[in-house]
Amino acid sequence: MSKMVSTELLNEFLSGSRRALAKLISAVENDGTQARAVLDELYGKIGQAYRLGITGPPGAGKSTLVDQLAKTIRASGKTVGIIAVDPTSPFTGGALLGDRVRMHDIATDPGVFIRSMATRGSLGGLSQKAQDAADVLDVFGKDFIIFETVGVGQSELDIVEAADTVIVVLVPESGDSVQAMKAGLMEIADIFVLNKADRDGASRAVQELEAILHLRPAAPWNPPVVSTVAPAGKGLDAVWKKIQQHREFLLQDGRLAAKRKQRLEKKIHELVSRRLKQEFWDEEAQQLLDASLENFQNQKLSPYRIVEELMNKFMASLQRKMEN
Amino acid sequence: MSKMVSTELLNEFLSGSRRALAKLISAVENDGTQARAVLDELYGKIGQAYRLGITGPPGAGKSTLVDQLAKTIRASGKTVGIIAVDPTSPFTGGALLGDRVRMHDIATDPGVFIRSMATRGSLGGLSQKAQDAADVLDVFGKDFIIFETVGVGQSELDIVEAADTVIVVLVPESGDSVQAMKAGLMEIADIFVLNKADRDGASRAVQELEAILHLRPAAPWNPPVVSTVAPAGKGLDAVWKKIQQHREFLLQDGRLAAKRKQRLEKKIHELVSRRLKQEFWDEEAQQLLDASLENFQNQKLSPYRIVEELMNKFMASLQRKMEN
Repeated sequence: MSKMVSTELLNEFLSGSRRALAKLISAVENDGTQARAVLDELYGKIGQAYRLGITGPPGAGKSTLVDQLAKTIRASGKTVGIIAVDPTSPFTGGALLGDRVRMHDIATDPGVFIRSMATRGSLGGLSQKAQDAADVLDVFGKDFIIFETVGVGQSELDIVEAADTVIVVLVPESGDSVQAMKAGLMEIADIFVLNKADRDGASRAVQELEAILHLRPAAPWNPPVVSTVAPAGKGLDAVWKKIQQHREFLLQDGRLAAKRKQRLEKKIHELVSRRLKQEFWDEEAQQLLDASLENFQNQKLSPYRIVEELMNKFMASLQRKMEN
Repeated sequence: MSKMVSTELLNEFLSGSRRALAKLISAVENDGTQARAVLDELYGKIGQAYRLGITGPPGAGKSTLVDQLAKTIRASGKTVGIIAVDPTSPFTGGALLGDRVRMHDIATDPGVFIRSMATRGSLGGLSQKAQDAADVLDVFGKDFIIFETVGVGQSELDIVEAADTVIVVLVPESGDSVQAMKAGLMEIADIFVLNKADRDGASRAVQELEAILHLRPAAPWNPPVVSTVAPAGKGLDAVWKKIQQHREFLLQDGRLAAKRKQRLEKKIHELVSRRLKQEFWDEEAQQLLDASLENFQNQKLSPYRIVEELMNKFMASLQRKMEN
């Protein structure tokens, strides 16, 4: 079995090698036992980076906004890791949206590390692997980590869990489809950004948004609306300011700590589910399932009864394992 | 423990009582042990109904199309069950889109049974419960079952599994957001319906769609594009014809049987995951998790190590259970 993560690599990583960083993220993505051991070792050091989630409907100009935000963060002397999650087809594995072109400044800045990731079958989802990659960036010493996702599907829920501050990027666009799609996104934003604010209908869109927000019951944190024109870099300082305000807010009354505890709990639930599946679906279970499915054609067995049989077999085989 | 499903109810159901049908679906939705036992009893009878999935971006006029399709099916002498899955907020549980108004003919036709369901936390998802409800409608004797979902999120994948024929409803609408959202939907359609075909840009939209489809490699089934104006009932006969053609196609070479076998396999995997979770997360496991999370603040334990501990505890408690 090839060693994916050598002590040498780990040391290079810990002394700040970008090359080693990239390799370690790959090792973690491939989810080998080695990588898991590595994360175990590094875990004591996780928790310094602040995590931002940027999401919104396709076409809102998120990539440019993310790049500009990274620039703003760099100007304040901090370092940035960007994890761009691209929706891929669960059927062909190919990219669903066109490749983004990143701003030159960002692409060449050694203080910025960018990683693109496919969603791998869960349309729009932010996988545990994206969070694991963020953990690696965290240990590496990145001050800020930005998750960039397309706001369709499961990603709304995932990003709320993965990020400390969630920014929803909208644009002045008409049409029922967009309105309804926004509906889920409305609930998760800590900060709203109205991008392409130089377009027709921009100020009206801001007003409508603020009116909707005004209807909500007052809360400890009321998401602000910031207008931007990302390619021109307009409004980015205001966004940056709001991020810092939200971070301050979370640091009060242990809110940030509570968020991160919840994140860890969810992660553990996910990992347990994965382990249980691995333990359960051995060769014997698969054969039992295949046999039941064959019978299905003829006898129309209830899936519930099939599951009972499988559970019994699982308990029995566990018992045998433990006796040996 | 109250009996949710009495023999009396079951008999009423099997003799065609709508009231009993509604009650049984509710029992199944609430997922009691009783309901499971009932499904077990009924399972031998499942498999007669043909399942249609209707999905598409919000604002495409799906509800009206579904109602008109139900009318068309009824005119051919068949009965229909409609399961309308409404996206609800995972945060508030409230509806994300406005309530639909169903066509009067359909709402009052005894040959049509309509059930609205919330997605309950998986944004846009078609839960196992929706499929269980479909199974109940199947046993009840419905010839056709229509799943109506909003095409955002996980629902694309779910509907492919739940339905025999998937119809994607689009409208002539411009804008990048909609285009990108369609991207995932493009792959799952067995039939495309271009609704609101009386709008500007309709014929061009059809041409563009057909051009995109033409670029695909030739396949055993090439999804046709049908134009409709749902409120006026235009194009529905053509849609109905294409559904029948697709059904004929699936009946060749055991394709439909293969689909349904896959559906059952997926269902079993889901049920196993649920059962394993139930077995695993007992009081002891929860306490162990809570204790680990407390320590997290202080010691930054790796989630992987916490999972190892939990797995060991699980194995140990299973062993104790079996020795008793």
